[in-house]
Amino acid sequence: MRTDIERFFSPKSIAIIGASQDLVTISGQPLKHLLSHGYKGKLYPINPKYPEISGVKCWPSMESLPETPELGLILVNATRVADMLTACGKKGIPYVIIFSSGFSETGGQGVAMQQKLADIAKEYNIGVIGPNCQGMINPAAAVYAGFGSVFNADYTAGSVSMVSQSGGFGFSVMNLSSLDGGLPFRQMVTTGNEIGVSTLDFMEYFIRDPQTDIIGTYIEGVKDARRILDVGDKALAAGKPILMWKVGNTEQGQKAAASHTANLGGAMALYKAAFRQKGIIQVEDIQDLVDYGHALRSNRLPRGNRLAIITISGGAGILMTDEIVAGGMQMAQLAPETVAKLKEFVPSYGSVGNPVDVTAAIFNDLSLINRTLQAINDDPGVDCIAMINASLQGEIAQKVAAEIVMVAAQTDKPIFISWSARDAVAPEAYAALDAARIPHYKSPVRCGRALAAVSWYAEAKRRNEAQKNDKAPVIKRPAAQAMLKGRTGDVAEYAAKQVLAEYGIPVTQEQLATSRDAAVAAAQKIGFPVAMKVQSADISHKTEAKAVRLNVTDAAGVAAAFDEILKNAKAYKADARIDGVLVQEMVGGGIEAIVGITNDALFGPAVMFGLGGIFAEVLKDVSFRLAPITPAMAREMIEEIKGYPVLAGARGKPPADVDALTDALVKLSALAVDLKDSVAELDINPLIVLPKGKGVKAADALIRIKG
Amino acid sequence: MRTDIERFFSPKSIAIIGASQDLVTISGQPLKHLLSHGYKGKLYPINPKYPEISGVKCWPSMESLPETPELGLILVNATRVADMLTACGKKGIPYVIIFSSGFSETGGQGVAMQQKLADIAKEYNIGVIGPNCQGMINPAAAVYAGFGSVFNADYTAGSVSMVSQSGGFGFSVMNLSSLDGGLPFRQMVTTGNEIGVSTLDFMEYFIRDPQTDIIGTYIEGVKDARRILDVGDKALAAGKPILMWKVGNTEQGQKAAASHTANLGGAMALYKAAFRQKGIIQVEDIQDLVDYGHALRSNRLPRGNRLAIITISGGAGILMTDEIVAGGMQMAQLAPETVAKLKEFVPSYGSVGNPVDVTAAIFNDLSLINRTLQAINDDPGVDCIAMINASLQGEIAQKVAAEIVMVAAQTDKPIFISWSARDAVAPEAYAALDAARIPHYKSPVRCGRALAAVSWYAEAKRRNEAQKNDKAPVIKRPAAQAMLKGRTGDVAEYAAKQVLAEYGIPVTQEQLATSRDAAVAAAQKIGFPVAMKVQSADISHKTEAKAVRLNVTDAAGVAAAFDEILKNAKAYKADARIDGVLVQEMVGGGIEAIVGITNDALFGPAVMFGLGGIFAEVLKDVSFRLAPITPAMAREMIEEIKGYPVLAGARGKPPADVDALTDALVKLSALAVDLKDSVAELDINPLIVLPKGKGVKAADALIRIKG
Repeated sequence: MRTDIERFFSPKSIAIIGASQDLVTISGQPLKHLLSHGYKGKLYPINPKYPEISGVKCWPSMESLPETPELGLILVNATRVADMLTACGKKGIPYVIIFSSGFSETGGQGVAMQQKLADIAKEYNIGVIGPNCQGMINPAAAVYAGFGSVFNADYTAGSVSMVSQSGGFGFSVMNLSSLDGGLPFRQMVTTGNEIGVSTLDFMEYFIRDPQTDIIGTYIEGVKDARRILDVGDKALAAGKPILMWKVGNTEQGQKAAASHTANLGGAMALYKAAFRQKGIIQVEDIQDLVDYGHALRSNRLPRGNRLAIITISGGAGILMTDEIVAGGMQMAQLAPETVAKLKEFVPSYGSVGNPVDVTAAIFNDLSLINRTLQAINDDPGVDCIAMINASLQGEIAQKVAAEIVMVAAQTDKPIFISWSARDAVAPEAYAALDAARIPHYKSPVRCGRALAAVSWYAEAKRRNEAQKNDKAPVIKRPAAQAMLKGRTGDVAEYAAKQVLAEYGIPVTQEQLATSRDAAVAAAQKIGFPVAMKVQSADISHKTEAKAVRLNVTDAAGVAAAFDEILKNAKAYKADARIDGVLVQEMVGGGIEAIVGITNDALFGPAVMFGLGGIFAEVLKDVSFRLAPITPAMAREMIEEIKGYPVLAGARGKPPADVDALTDALVKLSALAVDLKDSVAELDINPLIVLPKGKGVKAADALIRIKG
Repeated sequence: MRTDIERFFSPKSIAIIGASQDLVTISGQPLKHLLSHGYKGKLYPINPKYPEISGVKCWPSMESLPETPELGLILVNATRVADMLTACGKKGIPYVIIFSSGFSETGGQGVAMQQKLADIAKEYNIGVIGPNCQGMINPAAAVYAGFGSVFNADYTAGSVSMVSQSGGFGFSVMNLSSLDGGLPFRQMVTTGNEIGVSTLDFMEYFIRDPQTDIIGTYIEGVKDARRILDVGDKALAAGKPILMWKVGNTEQGQKAAASHTANLGGAMALYKAAFRQKGIIQVEDIQDLVDYGHALRSNRLPRGNRLAIITISGGAGILMTDEIVAGGMQMAQLAPETVAKLKEFVPSYGSVGNPVDVTAAIFNDLSLINRTLQAINDDPGVDCIAMINASLQGEIAQKVAAEIVMVAAQTDKPIFISWSARDAVAPEAYAALDAARIPHYKSPVRCGRALAAVSWYAEAKRRNEAQKNDKAPVIKRPAAQAMLKGRTGDVAEYAAKQVLAEYGIPVTQEQLATSRDAAVAAAQKIGFPVAMKVQSADISHKTEAKAVRLNVTDAAGVAAAFDEILKNAKAYKADARIDGVLVQEMVGGGIEAIVGITNDALFGPAVMFGLGGIFAEVLKDVSFRLAPITPAMAREMIEEIKGYPVLAGARGKPPADVDALTDALVKLSALAVDLKDSVAELDINPLIVLPKGKGVKAADALIRIKG
């Protein structure tokens, strides 16, 4: 795989294979755009039909070119792409963009045709972008190598680099987000079906690229999803935030994604887990991208999540409060000294609480701004400041901006501004803020949202720093590996729990009985009351099969239950292979949790946590992390679910043993890694979480073997 | 109360009391703005200090004016406002805006000063707007009666009328939402502390006003909150949608609101209930207001919530799918004939599913647009259509717009467009869509969001139509009224259930025993096992007091439990007045629900529903409706909570008796209305919902009497 991607974005020469004289068509556009934006390198349109196009000499074939171009653009019909790619390979072209459609996205024959392209690329070590994509723009080098209306515009060169799996929409995003006070782009590329250079390859390059400081990404799904963790780590280390627009979040959206591209969707929950683990910021619209981008370019991260708001309009202060609290920040509690200071000059009909409302009185006394900002900035309980200027414009706006810039220069706390004046009526004020890289937004909602995003990122960064020396434990159990190797189907409770026990996860005391007498003896040894359940790899739903008895209190009961369970199991499924009846201690007085492993095709092993019954199954109140996880990460998983107060001791109940639960999750994660070649899924349902100090116990478990 | 509000917005003459020659200050601005925008009526600045201001004769006093102005603006210091208002009253001015701050928002003396203003207004029948507000704009009549930077701009007259409790932010909203392709305003007013004409008064006027077609509102909280239902009904009948921006949605936001204005916050859950009952559309940012406004101005409502998407960019189709599904719409299932038709011309690398992806192939064959639109529009399973045009611009954009306008003219289904080209590069296309009132948005996310809002409104409208002839039952029980009249404190279980029974809500079979023997006799009559609980108005938390026994299985047990319960109750609270011990049937095999009444200070009686335990208390998974409710509304409440699948029969359990639950909620609502003068709160916790056909039973209840 090629990694000299800077060559791709700044080629010294470009071959345009299948260039058309009709400049309106897809195959006519790339040459037109390269010319019109003043590309300085050498252009080689290739088409045996024409002697020239737009005054540029046209060549009959790849072989006829006088040199090896650094980039090839293939614009021919799908059936002819393989030949053209081979010609590129023979010529030694390092990078080729294949624009043509008609490959795996059409299914059927297209899949085989695409595989052939991948083979050719490999044979000649070509970095292929596409097929089924829309090209690339590098404004600084005037490389506009693609088609579509947005290629008509001229873009200012900047430091945001973006990769998009969607062509048309990706370039719309660039267009709308880079113009009119938006974000200047360093480079933008669309990847289509990704047979060669993938989204994550480009992201890795952007992290290395010294001229990139913010990375934008639009994805429907990536094939090498687990690599997100590695790329995320590198981005955190480089201090380059990733803004990620992941679509296909709903079931129907995923269906739409599947029918549209060759990329597998993958479970949104696992994407979210990966994003959270590595501080990858999710965006949900173009506005987010621009707003968060501006926020991040200020290059200031808050030390904590406590915000103070200064406003000249009370209403706007409320709005922003709503927004930042919903986004996970808190309103700072101002120190008594700060409040006392504010009382000296804030009008009585204003407010010295947080939000601090200095009111429209600033029209009569401008010094209010500076004094308030200073007082708030001096408060050690304030991590960042938002100032709301309503629609101030003209001269007063200019003065207010100057005050803000002055205070900002004396602090490293982030200062964000909500300012609703249109650009035309406060140009000097906005220019002053821009020059000082002080982010400003037209509405308090957008300002609050951007603040919350930056605060979330800063928190993720702190968390990753703090956890740097935490190691997720590694547990190797060759015996367990051997036991599952070559198995097919499900591993039922008794055996599944033996696997759990190998990794130190506490399980109920139990014994597998194959006769009535053995069952009675087992019950007497364990102590009454006991639970009894059929054990069969063919019966996953034991309750449905009426092959479970709980709270059996004496020997006669055990004997009767043994017979009945076997009878019911056979009635439920005549040919079920039955291992026996499991006799088990009854565990009382705990809270039921569900914990599990998903070994995802794209992400690999992940750990899941939720509360029992309805919580997980109906309300989907669960958390995920990609394995391996540290104790700190396990603790986050537990505290993250909405039902967490149940474990913390809601409704007068004693708090549950969250330490033991944390430990069980960490061990489960180690198991997930150690057995990732054989375990497809594992469910512990329920894991009984006993009161604090009493531990946890797996009361039932099932392992699904990789198919 | 004055209702001739059209006079307020179009006064023939205006007195400016306390006008200043310093045109930058708050008291100098109104005259400046009225003059600069070319107000055609007569202006009377009043200030004994000046002979004239800006060339307008200045009058020494109200008395000295040669006529009675139709509007007064009071700009003097708080302490002098009462005298000025009295002067206005004596002169007979119908409407007065009080801009001055320093009243109830400052607490203390300000409250009394504000009350005085209210008294004066009443005495002279003045319609007062404010105090502590920022004025009004009526662009058509050139009335710019207020202060602030946004008064510098010239606004195009239109048909959106807005009232805002926030001054500074309210006008920012008008400014940002009415310019640059936004919504043209008919009138905009801010209400401040609302001692006279309130937000809801203005809304009622906007409904009557023939030149208003959309109503915008920004509120922190309204004092006469129940009136929202009545105003909502009138707006639905008039076909004028209300766009409501309600802030203070989080606890901290409510705190900020409380410290900022004199308006009580009120519970957000009840506001949401009222909005839902009357199809009042909530907005959360300026962009929403503009986007939804454009959507509603198209004047087409979908017949159902099934959307078909046509796109030239697959990625954007996924995005919009996510958005509309999250917004409560569904993706239409295209008919086989439609799919067959589409297959004739959609390229194979596109998609004939929904979203229909016609791909960039339209660059080569423009007829794809028209044919696809026609085919989709002909499908009876499609209620509305969204078309995504990526960034098409120039000539092709113009042609595409013409095709859309043509198809739109032949159908009454809503057609929404997502089009990311900037205004400057597709002006003719956008103008064509605007002329045909076809809503278009720069991003698929915004387009999807606006569609979902319109679909939600249309659904609310259909629901209100359908329920027009449904009557909420009225139940009058003078006996129950008499029983609660004059009581204080809590009404404990036994008596509370007698009240419930009066209204036909099923309760457990039970008897209050005041002696051990009576308890045993009661248990024998009811049948074992029984539950036993202390009855005392002074002990609300019976379990905490260890004064509850469940599953008592025989007479000896009842006798022992009786003694123990009384002993524990006395130990818990020595001076508790104890009515006896309640002996009650045990109800098994049902699902625990919590239903209740909140008799809110602002909204009056409301009914609450949730599932037992954790669901309601930890997860806050509850629904509210303002009473009275019809059976259809009760059914919505039940189906609305996330935990509803539990009742419908999740996890292999039998479905619960939702009919009986519906009936109980309707009766509870009738009780809430009948007893609204005495009941502050009522909780039935739990209401046991038995399997289908078996009914419901209130197992415990508590009434809190109005304090």
